[in-house]
Amino acid sequence: LAEKKTFVELGIPTCQFFPVDCVNDLYHAAESLAFPFVLKTRRLGYDGKGQIILREFFELESAWEKLNWQPCIAENWIDFEFEVSQIAARDHQGNIVYYPLVYNIHHEGILRESHAPYNNLALMQAARDYIKILMEKFNYIGVLTVEFFVKNGKLIANEMAPRVHNSGHWTIEGAVISQFENHMRAVAGLPLGDTQASSNSVMINLIGHHPDLNELIKLPNVHCHLYGKSPAKGRKLGHLTVVNADLEALNKTVKKLRQLIGSPVLFEPNF
Amino acid sequence: LAEKKTFVELGIPTCQFFPVDCVNDLYHAAESLAFPFVLKTRRLGYDGKGQIILREFFELESAWEKLNWQPCIAENWIDFEFEVSQIAARDHQGNIVYYPLVYNIHHEGILRESHAPYNNLALMQAARDYIKILMEKFNYIGVLTVEFFVKNGKLIANEMAPRVHNSGHWTIEGAVISQFENHMRAVAGLPLGDTQASSNSVMINLIGHHPDLNELIKLPNVHCHLYGKSPAKGRKLGHLTVVNADLEALNKTVKKLRQLIGSPVLFEPNF
Repeated sequence: LAEKKTFVELGIPTCQFFPVDCVNDLYHAAESLAFPFVLKTRRLGYDGKGQIILREFFELESAWEKLNWQPCIAENWIDFEFEVSQIAARDHQGNIVYYPLVYNIHHEGILRESHAPYNNLALMQAARDYIKILMEKFNYIGVLTVEFFVKNGKLIANEMAPRVHNSGHWTIEGAVISQFENHMRAVAGLPLGDTQASSNSVMINLIGHHPDLNELIKLPNVHCHLYGKSPAKGRKLGHLTVVNADLEALNKTVKKLRQLIGSPVLFEPNF
Repeated sequence: LAEKKTFVELGIPTCQFFPVDCVNDLYHAAESLAFPFVLKTRRLGYDGKGQIILREFFELESAWEKLNWQPCIAENWIDFEFEVSQIAARDHQGNIVYYPLVYNIHHEGILRESHAPYNNLALMQAARDYIKILMEKFNYIGVLTVEFFVKNGKLIANEMAPRVHNSGHWTIEGAVISQFENHMRAVAGLPLGDTQASSNSVMINLIGHHPDLNELIKLPNVHCHLYGKSPAKGRKLGHLTVVNADLEALNKTVKKLRQLIGSPVLFEPNF
């Protein structure tokens, strides 16, 4: 709620939303937003956890019960075309460096793939303007990520993450200086590094189970990162980054990797 | 001594050498090799430590005394033009992947810079042939490095290192898959990765004292690695890697970095 109010206060387009602290608020939100709309807890939600899509009046009270009657936020459903994220770093002197826009593909509320750079000059400029306003508002130091829905060529701020972000993991191999190094540089008072993409990259999350590494890393330009976690449904266990200046070859490798890991993603971003 | 004997046994060109186990051996070596020649301990020598250049007969016995009368090896002095290193990885199935040749610049016995890739087809082929023979001889699994002097367009094997090597640190940012990852892949029974250089790289060692990081990492495409060691004369405390497809811009950055760290290196490799 605080996040969405901040977007509004700073003139950053976001969804319509209403606070939900009691049953009356919930019915009020449903009348104002129309169905379907989304009910979300205000804290600790991630990867689609802590949110329920509501389609009819009779579901309202049971949905809120499922969220343990926590303070919630009701948001209108946005039928967005795709999602992008903007990652930037700001240092103690107020200098800001911006990574290229990233095109993100989700499935069941979980980030599956990030494609970078997503070159769209108008969206890029808007995303940089918005993240700059946010960073300056908070005198922010370090890496900040803002996720935007894209609809009719416009950005709609969805949420922000005050940290390095899954959609920026490709920067380890695919940008001159990674989001991790720039975060540390910012925090340590060192000069920020070059955020340019050195090539085209696709990051693919490894979710739920560990795939056969042997097959994956046989493919060209594939970098594998495992987080040392035990498998669980929907858990991010690691990620792959494929780097290739040749987009056609890159997408070919991505398709093979999807098959090998059993990815639900079936399409390429059209760029 | 075992290393040099192995080179000879396998038909790999190396220097002339004699074992030194007593004073008589030392005089015999001096008569056979002519001055100047090099007296080296057989174990634990590195960065020019454990070796003495001998120029006259009267120095022989005091030099050996300085080396605590350890078993030594006497080698003829080779007035080489430059040094290259070949790094390769071999897996459990006997597959070998070869990194590009690296052009190395030493000062006072310590590696100062590595420039990669050093593209010389004839030397490359010879280096690959030699390292392959060595790896197969030992049924070697992991990363092996062989250093060669270059003189009159020929390779002369100087020494080998059964491990990842300082002259391969550029592969972290400058090759598709680094020497470290390929070492681990080999040891873990995973398929070896692409050893191609993705651009041009120069690795510069940080020796003796910590430079002002602020100034170094302001320069474009500079990656800094510090090893967390306390400063000491001649100690390798870290390294910088500069990656740039544009060789002229790369060398410009390298020159600035040399000034900033007080490097004794004054020339560019002529390639």
